[in-house]
Amino acid sequence: MKNIRRIGVLTGGGDCPGLNAVIRAVVKTSIKQGCAVTGIKDGFEGLVKGKDFTFELTSDSVRGILPRGGTILGTTNRGNPFSFKVIENGIETTKDMSGVAINNMKSLNIDCLIVIGGDGSLSIALDFFKLGVPVVGIPKTIDNDLSATDFTFGYQTAVATATDAIDKLHTTAESHHRIMLLEVMGRNAGWIAMASGIAGGADIILIPEIPYDIDKICNKIEDRSSAGSKFSIIVVAEGAKPSGGEQMYLDSGAKRLGGVSQKVADEISAKTGLETRVTVLGHLQRGGTPVPFDRLLGTRLGAEAVRLALDGEFGKMVCLRTPDIKSVTIQEATGVLKTVSPDGDLVRTAKNIGISLGD
Amino acid sequence: MKNIRRIGVLTGGGDCPGLNAVIRAVVKTSIKQGCAVTGIKDGFEGLVKGKDFTFELTSDSVRGILPRGGTILGTTNRGNPFSFKVIENGIETTKDMSGVAINNMKSLNIDCLIVIGGDGSLSIALDFFKLGVPVVGIPKTIDNDLSATDFTFGYQTAVATATDAIDKLHTTAESHHRIMLLEVMGRNAGWIAMASGIAGGADIILIPEIPYDIDKICNKIEDRSSAGSKFSIIVVAEGAKPSGGEQMYLDSGAKRLGGVSQKVADEISAKTGLETRVTVLGHLQRGGTPVPFDRLLGTRLGAEAVRLALDGEFGKMVCLRTPDIKSVTIQEATGVLKTVSPDGDLVRTAKNIGISLGD
Amino acid sequence: MKNIRRIGVLTGGGDCPGLNAVIRAVVKTSIKQGCAVTGIKDGFEGLVKGKDFTFELTSDSVRGILPRGGTILGTTNRGNPFSFKVIENGIETTKDMSGVAINNMKSLNIDCLIVIGGDGSLSIALDFFKLGVPVVGIPKTIDNDLSATDFTFGYQTAVATATDAIDKLHTTAESHHRIMLLEVMGRNAGWIAMASGIAGGADIILIPEIPYDIDKICNKIEDRSSAGSKFSIIVVAEGAKPSGGEQMYLDSGAKRLGGVSQKVADEISAKTGLETRVTVLGHLQRGGTPVPFDRLLGTRLGAEAVRLALDGEFGKMVCLRTPDIKSVTIQEATGVLKTVSPDGDLVRTAKNIGISLGD
Amino acid sequence: MKNIRRIGVLTGGGDCPGLNAVIRAVVKTSIKQGCAVTGIKDGFEGLVKGKDFTFELTSDSVRGILPRGGTILGTTNRGNPFSFKVIENGIETTKDMSGVAINNMKSLNIDCLIVIGGDGSLSIALDFFKLGVPVVGIPKTIDNDLSATDFTFGYQTAVATATDAIDKLHTTAESHHRIMLLEVMGRNAGWIAMASGIAGGADIILIPEIPYDIDKICNKIEDRSSAGSKFSIIVVAEGAKPSGGEQMYLDSGAKRLGGVSQKVADEISAKTGLETRVTVLGHLQRGGTPVPFDRLLGTRLGAEAVRLALDGEFGKMVCLRTPDIKSVTIQEATGVLKTVSPDGDLVRTAKNIGISLGD
Repeated sequence: MKNIRRIGVLTGGGDCPGLNAVIRAVVKTSIKQGCAVTGIKDGFEGLVKGKDFTFELTSDSVRGILPRGGTILGTTNRGNPFSFKVIENGIETTKDMSGVAINNMKSLNIDCLIVIGGDGSLSIALDFFKLGVPVVGIPKTIDNDLSATDFTFGYQTAVATATDAIDKLHTTAESHHRIMLLEVMGRNAGWIAMASGIAGGADIILIPEIPYDIDKICNKIEDRSSAGSKFSIIVVAEGAKPSGGEQMYLDSGAKRLGGVSQKVADEISAKTGLETRVTVLGHLQRGGTPVPFDRLLGTRLGAEAVRLALDGEFGKMVCLRTPDIKSVTIQEATGVLKTVSPDGDLVRTAKNIGISLGD
Repeated sequence: MKNIRRIGVLTGGGDCPGLNAVIRAVVKTSIKQGCAVTGIKDGFEGLVKGKDFTFELTSDSVRGILPRGGTILGTTNRGNPFSFKVIENGIETTKDMSGVAINNMKSLNIDCLIVIGGDGSLSIALDFFKLGVPVVGIPKTIDNDLSATDFTFGYQTAVATATDAIDKLHTTAESHHRIMLLEVMGRNAGWIAMASGIAGGADIILIPEIPYDIDKICNKIEDRSSAGSKFSIIVVAEGAKPSGGEQMYLDSGAKRLGGVSQKVADEISAKTGLETRVTVLGHLQRGGTPVPFDRLLGTRLGAEAVRLALDGEFGKMVCLRTPDIKSVTIQEATGVLKTVSPDGDLVRTAKNIGISLGD
Repeated sequence: MKNIRRIGVLTGGGDCPGLNAVIRAVVKTSIKQGCAVTGIKDGFEGLVKGKDFTFELTSDSVRGILPRGGTILGTTNRGNPFSFKVIENGIETTKDMSGVAINNMKSLNIDCLIVIGGDGSLSIALDFFKLGVPVVGIPKTIDNDLSATDFTFGYQTAVATATDAIDKLHTTAESHHRIMLLEVMGRNAGWIAMASGIAGGADIILIPEIPYDIDKICNKIEDRSSAGSKFSIIVVAEGAKPSGGEQMYLDSGAKRLGGVSQKVADEISAKTGLETRVTVLGHLQRGGTPVPFDRLLGTRLGAEAVRLALDGEFGKMVCLRTPDIKSVTIQEATGVLKTVSPDGDLVRTAKNIGISLGD
Repeated sequence: MKNIRRIGVLTGGGDCPGLNAVIRAVVKTSIKQGCAVTGIKDGFEGLVKGKDFTFELTSDSVRGILPRGGTILGTTNRGNPFSFKVIENGIETTKDMSGVAINNMKSLNIDCLIVIGGDGSLSIALDFFKLGVPVVGIPKTIDNDLSATDFTFGYQTAVATATDAIDKLHTTAESHHRIMLLEVMGRNAGWIAMASGIAGGADIILIPEIPYDIDKICNKIEDRSSAGSKFSIIVVAEGAKPSGGEQMYLDSGAKRLGGVSQKVADEISAKTGLETRVTVLGHLQRGGTPVPFDRLLGTRLGAEAVRLALDGEFGKMVCLRTPDIKSVTIQEATGVLKTVSPDGDLVRTAKNIGISLGD
């Protein structure tokens, strides 16, 4: 087995609280084992651009970053080396730059690449692995919608931010007799909405997995009103959709942020005559000091990734199988979505305590 | 001087962290002096509707409310007794119901009315005072734009919420090389924007008092970019306006929430080609556990209001003149806006440390 | 199977964030199923004292308690009905009052008793079950040291409080070149110390499972000092003990709180000549707003307990087997301690990133 | 007037949240005006030790430090240059090293020294000023006990930490029917105790300015108990003392931390038979992310200090005279303690709402 003397590490995709905790663990674990670490800036884009987009990661580089959001490596959603955007003869086109990336790794003496990223970045990592590049993956999705792991880092921080927002809206809703809607992340899965909605004491939670019926929502609001509660809190996952209807985010994402919750709010106003107010959390969910759960999970995943790398276990992705840190092949892990089961305990508990799922 | 044996208390206008701290202080101070307290629900509307909208406030009623947002009395922006919305012969009209309100006070044995509210509610209180009703006012504006007092309760909590949001956006902006805009409250005055922008390390702050020039904003962003900082944080007061232009909120307020920051973002994108992201804090600024500063200030104002009431000092409004709690006549206090001086220390300091005000 | 028309619920033992979330879920789930709920005050003591120590729990009783620490039922460590402290003929003695407790349940029409408590309270619940009383248990231990469940509610909140304290000490330790010790809970198991220590970036963590060698601790401190880090953060579980020595808390607990960390601090000062400072978190770990993880877990456990009760599944205790809520017999669950394995992933990861466990 | 081309800056005395905000403002304001900044490590000790204890402060040096506790310059309570500890002929003695310090300033081309520190550090600054050294002072005391300024930075953060602790203890005290004591900072002045005690809803507050009578404390506890509140929260400033007695901290400070609150707790237990619990906040009050109020105040003070330096206004200390930033001579400012007036509004309000001051 080849001796691993230098590990490269990059972060890809959207921001996620805990990235720095992962990077710190990768660096500290590597150095303690006598292995050097090269940080690659701006995800795979940096790997293509090469030397100028890299720097030596030392113990000093990662001092103090544990409680900090963001990533000291920088990140981007662009820059797939297999389909890299380039300008040729004044025309923008895409080109396979994977060979350049692999040559860069060689000239930088990177023996193994640790990729911290979501489904997109891990698929790229897998493609490199298939070309013989030693890679290890660390899953990153704030939505917690990856089936191979119990939890992804960042998710609990997002839930904490969303729950804090519900707590804030609650007293205002009650004092002002208002219908307050909070839109949270979750394009394909309602994990953030379910967890924060239950933890925050929401009255109605709308998730992609359970299409909603606007009349059921209005009924719930009116039942509460009849019982003396002249306010309601509604948590809306951005991927929520009406029964028989479409998601609003399929193509253009961020541009229509807030679309679904505003639509629901307008329909409630029209049908009930009540005042509604919409708040869209957006990027606030991706930032800030990670909660201890995410710092610990990120640290454990980062340390395990280095152990895999040093053991030559390439093509693997680390994961949490409570209470243990395990690994699976990247092949198995990517593309398998974990969604909220309409028949599972979370939904049953929500309904048991009187929360409407809009169905 | 008439002996005050029962005080009535109501909260009017928008939500504000610290209202419960004020109510608690009013109740505890009154009861300790042997004076009973009647809580009036839903602001002045409750005073018109009478007995069913009131309840006895005891030590038990206010137990545990100090750290809670909202108001246990409920509140509303509607219900001016001098111009009360009624349905007569099937037609909605307004009617002077101030006499009804005064009669209700009499039949409820309320000897003095403490009004916790903003400019609107205090103007109504003043109108009642002119009719001979014993009133004492406690100022409430989350925007901190009242000239008679150094600070209003709730303001520091709103600043804390806004600063926390900037902290969250900062690391993402930096990691993703993005222009992040945060819209905060402040229709007429930029106090929240200035305080949170400086405290959160914003690069650009736009306030109503200083009309902005979009080119100056773009220059600042490009200067930062040239110096290696490929991201910027912009805090936008909702009342910000372009040089020579109009505010976007003059009439329809909440409906166009997010309008000004989205407009600025779009113009930046168009002129610089950079990716922008807008977050609108909205109601999150009005909710949540009040910070200790606001709980203490609210408590001091509430206690002083009762002292004024018991001393027969009617028509007065309590205020903070650091480090003392004082009072002024409601007449003097209402309608005098306190705005951020373009030549004052706050703006000078912001500019000294390199923040652009867009001018 | 007997129809369950009224459930009794009590909380026993020390305070734990999330108790109110559990109570709220028990009440809401019961009422939704048409079952009434009796709240029993002050744990098993209230069950012996009977009617005056009970009250009807309605939807109104549990409004707004989700984010609140403590327990609306009150709790105590005293009052085991099988060995109840009484005064007879002026002499304090203990007496079996279990029959009185059972009669009270009958006269209160309680068909099933839900006991939220730690090992002690659950053992009492088991004794009642053996006498034919329908009971369901919900585990509560802030130390997370119960083998039947992945996590207990309250634990993550305690970890968050401890991590926040480490964050606070960190910058001071660094600025002042000091050795800072933080004593956290964990008499028999080091879960809080391990999680907060890793999440907070501690340099040394001392836990009951791994006896420490004071020379190893001093070596670590001096190694850091030689490398330029003239400060260290040490997290000490209250049950930590020297190699070959005894725990300091075996008998008298709270009276010697802070004993072990002060002892370690004094020895470090004596051996290295460095300035040390001790902070003992104590009760701060048991209070405050529960983090969302604990509110959600508490809610799920409370709802499942009611489902078990209504299904006649008595003698069971609910538990988390990620991602599911399951149950085991109370018999199996009590008395089986879950401790940190010296060979497990948590300890391995800690050592990988350079943390000393003092061994 | 001499042209100021380089400013030196140092931090002295205990840690205080907001120090980094001040340093950042000093650096950014200086650089914007074309003036360089030298950071001096470890307070005045670094000034004596010279070049190796200094480094260039650039925009990059202060990036990201605004929300961070501690000081990037390091600090210490030792190292008064006028009485510097040295070893001569193997014997420890003190020596006037002020000449060395002044020479170091000259050889480092420091035209003006900005000293951020408490009474001790500012007195040293004054001594240097009397020798002709251009100095500007920025006051730093977490206790807020300086008469020349309305507030010192760091104080509101300490109050927030203390209030959060009271919030945490409150629910446990209530659930367990306990007397909880919290010891906070304030050796000479009770500002932190008063603000956090009122904001946190304490029942009893003991401060240095008002000697306590243990019987009055017990009466208050028993009155509450009779009224149904079988718990009490007592906030104790570390400088609290019994009527006719002595402070416990006069000489040995930190060694007897927790002494006074434990003494009060023991006396309460002895006299009332009730269970008491003591928590000592200690260093937690000096650490952590500064609240926005302190970040803003620190920034304003830092910017003003540079303006004074550039204007040649030496021997001055910046201060807050709400709402303005002003300055006074260091001579006037040092040694004048600001204490809580027993007849002032804060104490009156506390008593009005039913808080006992133990007198």
